[in-house]
Amino acid sequence: MAWIQRLSLSRIYPSSWTGCFHGSVCRGLSVTSANAAVQKLVPNEYDGPSVKTPIPGPRSQELIAKLDSITKNSGTVQYFVDFKASLGNYLVDVDGNRLLDLFMQISSIPIGYNHPAVIDVLKSSDNLHAMVNRPALGVFPGETFPDMLDQAFMQCAPKGLTKVQPMMCGACSNENAIKQAFLTYRRKKRGGPATQEEMDSCVTGKEPGCPLYTVLSFNGSFHGRTLGCLSMTNSKPIFRLDFPSLGWPVAPFPRLNYPLEDFVSENKAEESRCLQEVIRSIEENKVRGRDVAAVIVEPIQGEGGDNLASADFFRQLQAICKEHGVALVLDEVQTGCGTSGHFWAHEAWGLPEPPDFVTFSKKMLSGGYYFKDEFAVDAPSRIFNTWMGDPPKLLMLGAIIKVIQEMDLVGQARESGQYMMDGIKDLQARYPQHLSRARGMGTHIAVDGKDAESAAKIASLVREKGVIMGLSGKQSIRFRPALVFQPHHADICLERFDDVLASL
Amino acid sequence: MAWIQRLSLSRIYPSSWTGCFHGSVCRGLSVTSANAAVQKLVPNEYDGPSVKTPIPGPRSQELIAKLDSITKNSGTVQYFVDFKASLGNYLVDVDGNRLLDLFMQISSIPIGYNHPAVIDVLKSSDNLHAMVNRPALGVFPGETFPDMLDQAFMQCAPKGLTKVQPMMCGACSNENAIKQAFLTYRRKKRGGPATQEEMDSCVTGKEPGCPLYTVLSFNGSFHGRTLGCLSMTNSKPIFRLDFPSLGWPVAPFPRLNYPLEDFVSENKAEESRCLQEVIRSIEENKVRGRDVAAVIVEPIQGEGGDNLASADFFRQLQAICKEHGVALVLDEVQTGCGTSGHFWAHEAWGLPEPPDFVTFSKKMLSGGYYFKDEFAVDAPSRIFNTWMGDPPKLLMLGAIIKVIQEMDLVGQARESGQYMMDGIKDLQARYPQHLSRARGMGTHIAVDGKDAESAAKIASLVREKGVIMGLSGKQSIRFRPALVFQPHHADICLERFDDVLASL
Repeated sequence: MAWIQRLSLSRIYPSSWTGCFHGSVCRGLSVTSANAAVQKLVPNEYDGPSVKTPIPGPRSQELIAKLDSITKNSGTVQYFVDFKASLGNYLVDVDGNRLLDLFMQISSIPIGYNHPAVIDVLKSSDNLHAMVNRPALGVFPGETFPDMLDQAFMQCAPKGLTKVQPMMCGACSNENAIKQAFLTYRRKKRGGPATQEEMDSCVTGKEPGCPLYTVLSFNGSFHGRTLGCLSMTNSKPIFRLDFPSLGWPVAPFPRLNYPLEDFVSENKAEESRCLQEVIRSIEENKVRGRDVAAVIVEPIQGEGGDNLASADFFRQLQAICKEHGVALVLDEVQTGCGTSGHFWAHEAWGLPEPPDFVTFSKKMLSGGYYFKDEFAVDAPSRIFNTWMGDPPKLLMLGAIIKVIQEMDLVGQARESGQYMMDGIKDLQARYPQHLSRARGMGTHIAVDGKDAESAAKIASLVREKGVIMGLSGKQSIRFRPALVFQPHHADICLERFDDVLASL
Repeated sequence: MAWIQRLSLSRIYPSSWTGCFHGSVCRGLSVTSANAAVQKLVPNEYDGPSVKTPIPGPRSQELIAKLDSITKNSGTVQYFVDFKASLGNYLVDVDGNRLLDLFMQISSIPIGYNHPAVIDVLKSSDNLHAMVNRPALGVFPGETFPDMLDQAFMQCAPKGLTKVQPMMCGACSNENAIKQAFLTYRRKKRGGPATQEEMDSCVTGKEPGCPLYTVLSFNGSFHGRTLGCLSMTNSKPIFRLDFPSLGWPVAPFPRLNYPLEDFVSENKAEESRCLQEVIRSIEENKVRGRDVAAVIVEPIQGEGGDNLASADFFRQLQAICKEHGVALVLDEVQTGCGTSGHFWAHEAWGLPEPPDFVTFSKKMLSGGYYFKDEFAVDAPSRIFNTWMGDPPKLLMLGAIIKVIQEMDLVGQARESGQYMMDGIKDLQARYPQHLSRARGMGTHIAVDGKDAESAAKIASLVREKGVIMGLSGKQSIRFRPALVFQPHHADICLERFDDVLASL
């Protein structure tokens, strides 16, 4: 089978990344004549996977036992990584297995392992003192902090959003974005200062100081695992079973039929049904005194099974929020930072105005959220914690954003994603008994197995052949490669995937 | 006034930290003859504060405006820091003001600014690849991760606790510790696998899958600002106003009278009253189907005003929890890592068995919690998030723990704390119209001003003289120095404090 090599020549790697920047990663490297012709974005990257042991191998198993003796929580660990030997799109495990990684630490390595631009940041003595002294950024930040924010977050800010609040991870980004939405909602509703009764009652969590306001989320959503975020997470029992809940409302998220072109009117009706439920829920909860202060939604539901909706759905959702005075919070923790073929997935929708909040984490290395001016806090210390972010991550991200822009890696994700999607659709056409519902944006791609067991088995067999794919939802196989993923990597994945499907 | 110099000679700084390890910090250094005799734990540390401009100075003001244009949330920023020039106990701001720092980034710099042991970790090429590639530690950790956990967390584990779960910050440590307590409580109560009804109902946050279980916290507590943590935080309106609450129960925390020796029976009665309320709340909530699964408490209430209780109070609290099958979660985010004169404050209480959970963050550089084996999860992915910690922080902490142990900095905190407390009590005796209720453990010390305004004014005036103190609760001045704080630093603080009190 031949997947045609396509590569934009504008994305030649900067000359600064040449030769062997770290001895160990070059060991045993051999360039085949076929691959020598490919313009690699990652110089000296390995030519392909190499699997030497069952996975996890003996060394990984030893380390899993060691870890379990400390945390008693090692059940999710797949294997241990040799981060020194990993490079670009390739993860090398501690047993010497070299795996083409299309999952990338749960979608959170932006430009591949051991990128020299990131190494330079860590090696620079200019940055040392920003890394060694962890500041309380909300009180005593370092001199370069505003510049860090500018280079890390403002250079890639969604169009029309000029304010950002740094945080630490995806969960605390969502927690604080909705807190800011609650503040704004109540400020508008109250129209003046808080009453003494509100001030007194809130200290121990009582009304009226602590209102019964809610956030509306969608079936299939995942927004994090702290108790506030869990109250907006509606995908799998494992996330919420046995944990108390704020009891917030949930609306249905569209379940689209594929291929989209064959189900235009059905899908439109499905989206309309969901939007009607959003309106109904907002209105009903207001009557009950449980005002919906914010609607939170992922552009593509990541953990919940790679569920997408149309641009029109999101435009209408924004209009509904606006009409009802409800904040629209877009959770781009998994879709952000270029993977969708746009820097932010929502940029594909042509929204008439920016969303009210855009939250991020993962590929952005630490967390935060953009917001519209009208949602800014109106008093100090309403949104606050000890650290409010982490300078070393901002420094690293600043360098990464520069690489993404200089090399147009967002365009690369669009191209590589299209190439990969063509290949997945081809497989789906040839193995309809095993695959269905190929879907995605950019490299943020998924395809369904026939059931949960089958999807897991396929991913496991493909891994035995040296390629890491992820799972999501009930029965989806998901791809979350780095932005340096190229068509020749897709070829390797598709060939292995094909072999496995043929063997079933 | 003379505060006698006391210094254990066993704490001489290692010879590796000699001379000027970083050019810039030595600029303008002049050693006075008086101080030359003091055995400094921080070689080449500045001799004293030097204030050149109003604080915040012009450069800080410029940067505050710049920051505000990005975050619209700069109201809590006091000034910007020159982290290159800061050293040991001294913070240097961007206007060249050199301040003796007894607040240390909200109590989160363990062994002073720019400690060479921490710098070495960041400079080491061995650590580079653990820092450049941020792993999903719950799935694909690096080879050295178990060793990092051992060196960072297990070398200083509270007696009897041999399991630890790494996290990111104090809030997510508390969120996940109580989640683990909920899991254990329900596992014991249920006695078997979850029902289908529980599995189905929990996905959207409904009973019986999401139980109405609660966590009991105390008046005056602070446990973080995510919505779950806020539901256990009962100190100031600013933390909770306008945010929804889980409506969990709150018990009174003892309000002790000082000096303790004059109020023995009154304080005993006060503690007994609070413990009775704990019992009443646990029993009453159980009847209402809102079982208390955990009690969470700080050894010293940090943000709530430095409220302490006796060792006997905590021993009785543990007995009550045990009797009722409720987990005891000690939040040592602010009291941990040596500041109390014990590595963990609860080690002073002589508990008959270890607490069920001990959470930490701040001086520990990232978050986590220790727990007893019986509270371990019994299935994978119940306690999980993408990052589950941050390797660079573990590497740094490993080096810090080594320094703390080798130099007995916990013993130093006990000695310096006693010296400081004697000085504060002396000031209190001489200025009873301004100061009262001097209290604390180790260097974790506070004293009350006569009201909120007076306390803030004193802290501000002392800062003008070059010493940073913190505030807590309604009207307390709090001290949270690093573990390299010595009596000669206390002298400087006490002299400036004295001058300010005399001037009022």
